[in-house]
Amino acid sequence: MTTLSNTLALAHQLIAIDSVTPDDKGCQDIMIERLAAIGFRIERLRYEDVDNFWAVRGDSGPLLAFAGHTDVVPTGPVAEWQYPPFEPQIVDGMLYGRGAADMKGSLAAMVTASEEFVAKHPDHSGRIGFLITSDEEGPATNGTVKVVEHLQAQGEHIDWCLVGEPSSTNKVGDIIKNGRRGSLGCEMTINGTQGHVAYPHLADNPIHKAAPALADLSQEHWDEGNDYFPATSFQISNINGGTGATNVIPGTLSVVFNLRFSTELSPEVIKQRVVSILDKHGLNYELNWNLSGLPFLTEKGRLVDAISAAIESATGYQTELSTAGGTSDGRFIAPTGTQVVEVGPVNATIHKVDECVKAEDLDKLHDIYCATLVNMLAQ
Amino acid sequence: MTTLSNTLALAHQLIAIDSVTPDDKGCQDIMIERLAAIGFRIERLRYEDVDNFWAVRGDSGPLLAFAGHTDVVPTGPVAEWQYPPFEPQIVDGMLYGRGAADMKGSLAAMVTASEEFVAKHPDHSGRIGFLITSDEEGPATNGTVKVVEHLQAQGEHIDWCLVGEPSSTNKVGDIIKNGRRGSLGCEMTINGTQGHVAYPHLADNPIHKAAPALADLSQEHWDEGNDYFPATSFQISNINGGTGATNVIPGTLSVVFNLRFSTELSPEVIKQRVVSILDKHGLNYELNWNLSGLPFLTEKGRLVDAISAAIESATGYQTELSTAGGTSDGRFIAPTGTQVVEVGPVNATIHKVDECVKAEDLDKLHDIYCATLVNMLAQ
Repeated sequence: MTTLSNTLALAHQLIAIDSVTPDDKGCQDIMIERLAAIGFRIERLRYEDVDNFWAVRGDSGPLLAFAGHTDVVPTGPVAEWQYPPFEPQIVDGMLYGRGAADMKGSLAAMVTASEEFVAKHPDHSGRIGFLITSDEEGPATNGTVKVVEHLQAQGEHIDWCLVGEPSSTNKVGDIIKNGRRGSLGCEMTINGTQGHVAYPHLADNPIHKAAPALADLSQEHWDEGNDYFPATSFQISNINGGTGATNVIPGTLSVVFNLRFSTELSPEVIKQRVVSILDKHGLNYELNWNLSGLPFLTEKGRLVDAISAAIESATGYQTELSTAGGTSDGRFIAPTGTQVVEVGPVNATIHKVDECVKAEDLDKLHDIYCATLVNMLAQ
Repeated sequence: MTTLSNTLALAHQLIAIDSVTPDDKGCQDIMIERLAAIGFRIERLRYEDVDNFWAVRGDSGPLLAFAGHTDVVPTGPVAEWQYPPFEPQIVDGMLYGRGAADMKGSLAAMVTASEEFVAKHPDHSGRIGFLITSDEEGPATNGTVKVVEHLQAQGEHIDWCLVGEPSSTNKVGDIIKNGRRGSLGCEMTINGTQGHVAYPHLADNPIHKAAPALADLSQEHWDEGNDYFPATSFQISNINGGTGATNVIPGTLSVVFNLRFSTELSPEVIKQRVVSILDKHGLNYELNWNLSGLPFLTEKGRLVDAISAAIESATGYQTELSTAGGTSDGRFIAPTGTQVVEVGPVNATIHKVDECVKAEDLDKLHDIYCATLVNMLAQ
């Protein structure tokens, strides 16, 4: 039997725990024990049913924090997994298990990178932090949001934040996320008048009324994007109307849509434009908006440069900046003025059955995180 | 206590039986006993779980048949009824109960009209028939369809048919239905590619693709109608797409629609026009068509004239012809070359809680049916 690297051994240990969101189930205890052993001061922060912790090493100076989550998404039908989700194993060089890519592999690499860095640079400059939650995959209300509020109340400011989300596309480190689009959701109800299909003049079909407006919304050119952001996109995720009976015209139509938007647009402008399209079609409607994140951007500078150099030294290739893809807890940290960058494993299998990651990629990720610490905080 | 007319007494008797489709529960036994007593020959025709009967009086000559159904639609929540659905009672001149209007009141009027007519004209010309089912409100597969097939196999031909469906709008007999539009339904699936809302370029949103086509379909001018028929109408009754999650673009969209069409269009032409609209928008789709009835029409002539005159003599006002509204079992009888006309009570409360009809309207309906028999078959 091959001996596992420290990073892979810790990843195995974390994946073996079925910490389905929001249950941490002891993952954070393992991390805390390792970090406390190398001089981190620990603050456990439990909010309602969510475990979080904040750890910091060093007394003063700029603060570089790792951020991540111990919770994982549900497995779905376990019978569909070839490799049981909570029995981590390496087969043909791939580490299988729920959370291997999102993001227990990253957590392991953060811990072992800190261990290696601290061993070599016990008197590093500045401070190293860990902001860990078990509520990233769920409602995200008692996790990073609350910890950030707590840190702000304490007067603590994170200068640079390295989020371990699986940012990579084809090989580890090929893409780093230096920002994220905003996300604005809406539950829309279109009102009509119910009736019998045989007597359409007595009814007012909300599906018929909505169709041209939905066509306009889905064809709208929202913006051009910019140097850092792709164009804003609009997607209808759910549409439901009808009683189930084939002879009844429904009284209402329900539509759920979402915009991923760039820094070129504000939520207010988007809302006005949606309303204007609906009004143009003379619809009777209700809108229930939900802003789940404003866009954020970390432009090129010290953090991006340090990580880019770390990736090149660990892998031999150059990384690319991107703001595409979904939201992450970075959206809660960036508004405090923190430079936030996401670097993690390849995301091809996240949230899927047989989630996996190349085992050697976690060791490379360890090297990337460690080199970043060196580039930022070595004396 | 006022003595009820024969018609109202029989209506009470029938309404008191909870013959929710397809259970006849003895309603037909009551009708059969009354008809047999005045010389009708009875043929009981049970198909699977559906009771039907055919009754005929007279030995030769043209055949005028009454058609109707003993089954009623479900009550819905009984607590919402002010007057219990199966406890018929007359309050302020209104007879309440499930089936009062649709169509046990008509059945009672048909039986008592035949009794009165036969008493006065025991040697009438031609023949009188009754085609009664308990499957009109359900799938309508083991009722009138099967009885008509049986009669055709026996070489029996109905010349004129008087269906007791509630045709009237404001007062009994104000409208007679001398035809019905056809009904063509379709379950349509629009195919796309599922994906994450944050990565729309990897998905293909079937809701977005369908919206312009649905707009076109709902705005299509199908025909102008004609002297007897209103314009063909298209209605979407149900639309469903989405996984429930707000961040997933669904892979398919399901749409159920229905056309009520005039004699100006054939189902084949309608299907071609729908396909052409879908193809214009480059959609990937599946269509599952269901033709539930071709349009039929009984032009002015002996039957329409006899009924119109009967209504005028019984009520003092003139009736109007209409082909509007829903389908009825007339659609199964008309294709055999029968002249079919529907005359029954006011339909304002059918299928609703506290279904009711003016008590005196049932006596007028008796007069209308009786006068029609006189006009058509008196020696």
